Amino acid sequence: MRFFSDNAAAVHPAVLEALAAANRVDTAYDGDALSKSLDGAFSDLFGTDCAALWVSTGTAANCLALAAMVPPHGGVLCHREAHINTDEAGAPEFYTHGAKLMPLDGGGAKLVPETVRDARRAIRADVHQVQPHALSITNATEYGLVYRPDEVAALGEVAKELGLGFHMDGARFANAMATLGGHPGDGTWRAGVDALSFGFVKNGGLSAEMLIFFRREWAEVAKIRRKRAGHLNSKGRYQAAQVLALLEADRWLDNGRASNAGAAAIAEAAGARLVLPVEANEVFLRLTPDEAASLRAQGFDFYDWAEGEARLVTSWDQPRAEIEALAGAIRALGS
Amino acid sequence: MRFFSDNAAAVHPAVLEALAAANRVDTAYDGDALSKSLDGAFSDLFGTDCAALWVSTGTAANCLALAAMVPPHGGVLCHREAHINTDEAGAPEFYTHGAKLMPLDGGGAKLVPETVRDARRAIRADVHQVQPHALSITNATEYGLVYRPDEVAALGEVAKELGLGFHMDGARFANAMATLGGHPGDGTWRAGVDALSFGFVKNGGLSAEMLIFFRREWAEVAKIRRKRAGHLNSKGRYQAAQVLALLEADRWLDNGRASNAGAAAIAEAAGARLVLPVEANEVFLRLTPDEAASLRAQGFDFYDWAEGEARLVTSWDQPRAEIEALAGAIRALGS
Amino acid sequence: MRFFSDNAAAVHPAVLEALAAANRVDTAYDGDALSKSLDGAFSDLFGTDCAALWVSTGTAANCLALAAMVPPHGGVLCHREAHINTDEAGAPEFYTHGAKLMPLDGGGAKLVPETVRDARRAIRADVHQVQPHALSITNATEYGLVYRPDEVAALGEVAKELGLGFHMDGARFANAMATLGGHPGDGTWRAGVDALSFGFVKNGGLSAEMLIFFRREWAEVAKIRRKRAGHLNSKGRYQAAQVLALLEADRWLDNGRASNAGAAAIAEAAGARLVLPVEANEVFLRLTPDEAASLRAQGFDFYDWAEGEARLVTSWDQPRAEIEALAGAIRALGS
Amino acid sequence: MRFFSDNAAAVHPAVLEALAAANRVDTAYDGDALSKSLDGAFSDLFGTDCAALWVSTGTAANCLALAAMVPPHGGVLCHREAHINTDEAGAPEFYTHGAKLMPLDGGGAKLVPETVRDARRAIRADVHQVQPHALSITNATEYGLVYRPDEVAALGEVAKELGLGFHMDGARFANAMATLGGHPGDGTWRAGVDALSFGFVKNGGLSAEMLIFFRREWAEVAKIRRKRAGHLNSKGRYQAAQVLALLEADRWLDNGRASNAGAAAIAEAAGARLVLPVEANEVFLRLTPDEAASLRAQGFDFYDWAEGEARLVTSWDQPRAEIEALAGAIRALGS
Repeated sequence: MRFFSDNAAAVHPAVLEALAAANRVDTAYDGDALSKSLDGAFSDLFGTDCAALWVSTGTAANCLALAAMVPPHGGVLCHREAHINTDEAGAPEFYTHGAKLMPLDGGGAKLVPETVRDARRAIRADVHQVQPHALSITNATEYGLVYRPDEVAALGEVAKELGLGFHMDGARFANAMATLGGHPGDGTWRAGVDALSFGFVKNGGLSAEMLIFFRREWAEVAKIRRKRAGHLNSKGRYQAAQVLALLEADRWLDNGRASNAGAAAIAEAAGARLVLPVEANEVFLRLTPDEAASLRAQGFDFYDWAEGEARLVTSWDQPRAEIEALAGAIRALGS
Repeated sequence: MRFFSDNAAAVHPAVLEALAAANRVDTAYDGDALSKSLDGAFSDLFGTDCAALWVSTGTAANCLALAAMVPPHGGVLCHREAHINTDEAGAPEFYTHGAKLMPLDGGGAKLVPETVRDARRAIRADVHQVQPHALSITNATEYGLVYRPDEVAALGEVAKELGLGFHMDGARFANAMATLGGHPGDGTWRAGVDALSFGFVKNGGLSAEMLIFFRREWAEVAKIRRKRAGHLNSKGRYQAAQVLALLEADRWLDNGRASNAGAAAIAEAAGARLVLPVEANEVFLRLTPDEAASLRAQGFDFYDWAEGEARLVTSWDQPRAEIEALAGAIRALGS
Repeated sequence: MRFFSDNAAAVHPAVLEALAAANRVDTAYDGDALSKSLDGAFSDLFGTDCAALWVSTGTAANCLALAAMVPPHGGVLCHREAHINTDEAGAPEFYTHGAKLMPLDGGGAKLVPETVRDARRAIRADVHQVQPHALSITNATEYGLVYRPDEVAALGEVAKELGLGFHMDGARFANAMATLGGHPGDGTWRAGVDALSFGFVKNGGLSAEMLIFFRREWAEVAKIRRKRAGHLNSKGRYQAAQVLALLEADRWLDNGRASNAGAAAIAEAAGARLVLPVEANEVFLRLTPDEAASLRAQGFDFYDWAEGEARLVTSWDQPRAEIEALAGAIRALGS
Repeated sequence: MRFFSDNAAAVHPAVLEALAAANRVDTAYDGDALSKSLDGAFSDLFGTDCAALWVSTGTAANCLALAAMVPPHGGVLCHREAHINTDEAGAPEFYTHGAKLMPLDGGGAKLVPETVRDARRAIRADVHQVQPHALSITNATEYGLVYRPDEVAALGEVAKELGLGFHMDGARFANAMATLGGHPGDGTWRAGVDALSFGFVKNGGLSAEMLIFFRREWAEVAKIRRKRAGHLNSKGRYQAAQVLALLEADRWLDNGRASNAGAAAIAEAAGARLVLPVEANEVFLRLTPDEAASLRAQGFDFYDWAEGEARLVTSWDQPRAEIEALAGAIRALGS
């Protein structure tokens, strides 16, 4: 029973059906009707005019967004444990041609305005120090916390005040929205977000992530950079089809709810073992080595995190029985 | 009836079936069993130990190969009309961090050894001039010509003599092999090729191309660079599944034969109109503007090329009726 | 007697005196009074407001100019034999993060408007092909020809029409001006030039070249890039002092005249041997191997160029006796 | 009276004399006799075979060294307050094409082996996390502390153990050696240092810093990169002449001693106000805003550092009277 990562989950059946339905001769690259419909579909979803580009990984989405905001000599303010800083192999530096990630602290991988302001203040405005050009946050965070729209808006205000582009890594945006409810525009463009990496792969997709520019003028150069990075698939219609299938009937949101529900059930069982509140589909638990070994012996797979801590991630397609089994096993460890 | 590009073709049904068959929880990235089997599958196919990496585009495959061979301060000898030089938006320069493409001439986008030797000879071996570190050829070429194994071997010898890595862009490698027959090792590693971009997308695939390293030691850094370029799909098993489906029962070769057969039939109809011999699935024709307009009025879509010339590309799934209709229409133009 | 290159020449005594005169405690980097006076000094010289940055090499000046005009995914139209394309070790690609140099043809390394227009026309305006963002010319050219102000203006018009930044590599700008006479603004900003690399080192300087931005708004980022490239000398006053000494009393122009005069005298002796007209301080001659050997045996050093051709460069400080000796020796070869 | 930075100091008269003495026609770039003698001169000084390249700034020296050690996808372990991390405008990222600086903590900008080992241990050896390829330290540090040879050797051992290149930023190497005494090989190559940025500009030079490779094989590519970065001055003999003048009669060491002596005198006066021990030519003091204002009113210029702290830097040519005046003024503040 795999609680390693939502990357391990299967693809939603509707996605496979959509691929089959798209399986005919069509214009190459992003010239097909499905790809062309994405701007409209996401403009509808977010309630504002936006440009929507498919790419095949969240790393590509994040880095194309950052490269649109940050010159090679600029910097990106982000959390020290942001995925872009820790797990993307230096891709942001590659795409931006050497911009500097400027790691900030904050509990549960969340940032607050004062941290951002302090960081900016500590940098001299001269040619010797790298000047930040963007702020990037992750929602839900790498620790499964969720920024509320007003929290995002407070950061958006700082970004505006400091002349920073504002990027949101939404690899688990669906999980955040499932928790938040409300309108997807509220915690994004209405809160000052300029570009959103909107994750679909962890959430039922196969190979298509979306990069949403709320500042459309940035999309044109991003399209050139997408090609230059080898991310303009020649049969783009199969990328678009996946995403459209998940948008249809709010499947993306249902899937987010499903994985969150699994995590909530485990959290309830975990009680005082929780390192952090569970607001999305990740559970961070205190487990002794013996306890971890015991769970593994019962067939549960997961990552060790900090010492004496474990990370468990639930997926949109995780069988209820696995969740219950895990919850039971955790309860059985005692507290 | 589309003769624009084989990029427009549909996906082979076996590929869609393979995606469905792979649709279960599995290890993320390239840790799944299907991805892990690729080294073996391609080592079997080529008759030598090789490393096989999936990526989502031919551009990514080409550029990861070149970046393995060429330092930022080096150069790549290639044909002036090589796809890497004309149609990849500067991706080779991006991936190599600024290496210089050094364009060479040759009929039908083919290179011969003397051209390569002359180019090397014209460069002073000092710190002021960029030194070439790789030679890249395309097989089948951008003009639908095919290098024979002995032609590749002659270039491979030059590459070795001059200390150059040797890359083959095989976006249409299947078409070349369908024409050549024989063993795929003959015109590749046995002829000195170090890395091959092996195309599947134009040939029945959906989003998976392969990068084959015949010098395995280069693969480890290429895997890091793949991640750094955002090309390590998180659900890699669906990439591997596509390729394995096309390898099975030599579907890749059958598809190559099918598209070549279409081009051959058109070539026969075109007769003296041919600008170049047709050795793969591309036909370059002399057409007056009126003739081109007439064909288009009959429903045939294709690109104008040089003045008074057109390019028509056939696909693996092109209906026989379309081919016959086009052949008939060309014959009807007279000669 | 060295006719290899004007790089071999000595430093003008006034430059050494200026260094000694600057030898006191002062503000570091470019915060000293001498550095601060450069904008004014060059604005006066050119008759327009400009920003003037010292750097230590012509390569750095050229590349900072190009990086100000061209994004990483863009291209630079230039002559095939432009120094930036042939002798700067890929520095333009380094500074621009991989922009593509797009070599054009033209006699004597000179470009004409039609060549530039044709090159632009041959590039499709899509995301697959690199789009040019700048035009770069060299005055005097690598073959010692001089663009007249109206020739520059015609190119400047094309640049404007095509949306290209316009850069002039003036490593031998002094030699060009010595030939042209007139106002230095005429063949530069009045002719549409946006940035000029103004060479001083070949012309009596020690280690200071100037980068002049006629579009001041580009200078701010260029100053950041200069630091990022390690070209912000910590004791910048010694850079500024060199340049100011050469500006004083038009020494730069006198030096340009002196080296041109030497070349003119040799050209007169060479007569029908000249491969190209001599308009600055470079002489390209037809010489058989035996003739070349004979000159060398008499103590004259120079480079072989194309087969049967030699390049001789005169310097600002070349003794009259050396020039006369060479002229005599060439005459003695017969014609 | 300037205590801002040793960058503000004048040039040693012997350097100006050496420039004058070098003022004759000679081979361009680094082909002159003076430049060619540098390998020998530094091999003699360090007691081992080394390659010695001049460049015009410490930033260039540091970054060429790092680029020799670290691929674009690699990382550099260094102190959080290392000059390369805080004051070089992202130059290391530029020269390495996006390598990641990995900041570590330590008092007085000094690193200890355990910090380095811990940092390496915290990085997973997979393709998702950037792997460190080099360790860089500064001697004397940015806070004026000096690493003893055995401290360097302990770090050198860790570097070897972890497969890291080992770079020393010696912008103030002369100050460190003046404090340490002994042989310059002891705290460098004998302690495992692979490349040293040996500073001359702060110490009496004009525009020449040295990059010393104790692993000669790295120098060849570094020479290409030097040209590619625009740092191969065309009249290199004037760079070499400066350095040779400072090597002669151990002037570099005398100058280091002179500036250290000034700092020591101030430190003695400062007593309990010292934030850190004074081991080179930098003094960090506790000063209230009023005290700082009072010193400034008396004509002393210096930087504020952290809150309630000031940095004062002494130079090789600082008049004894200025030192005594400052010491007196500090004493007069009381303690």
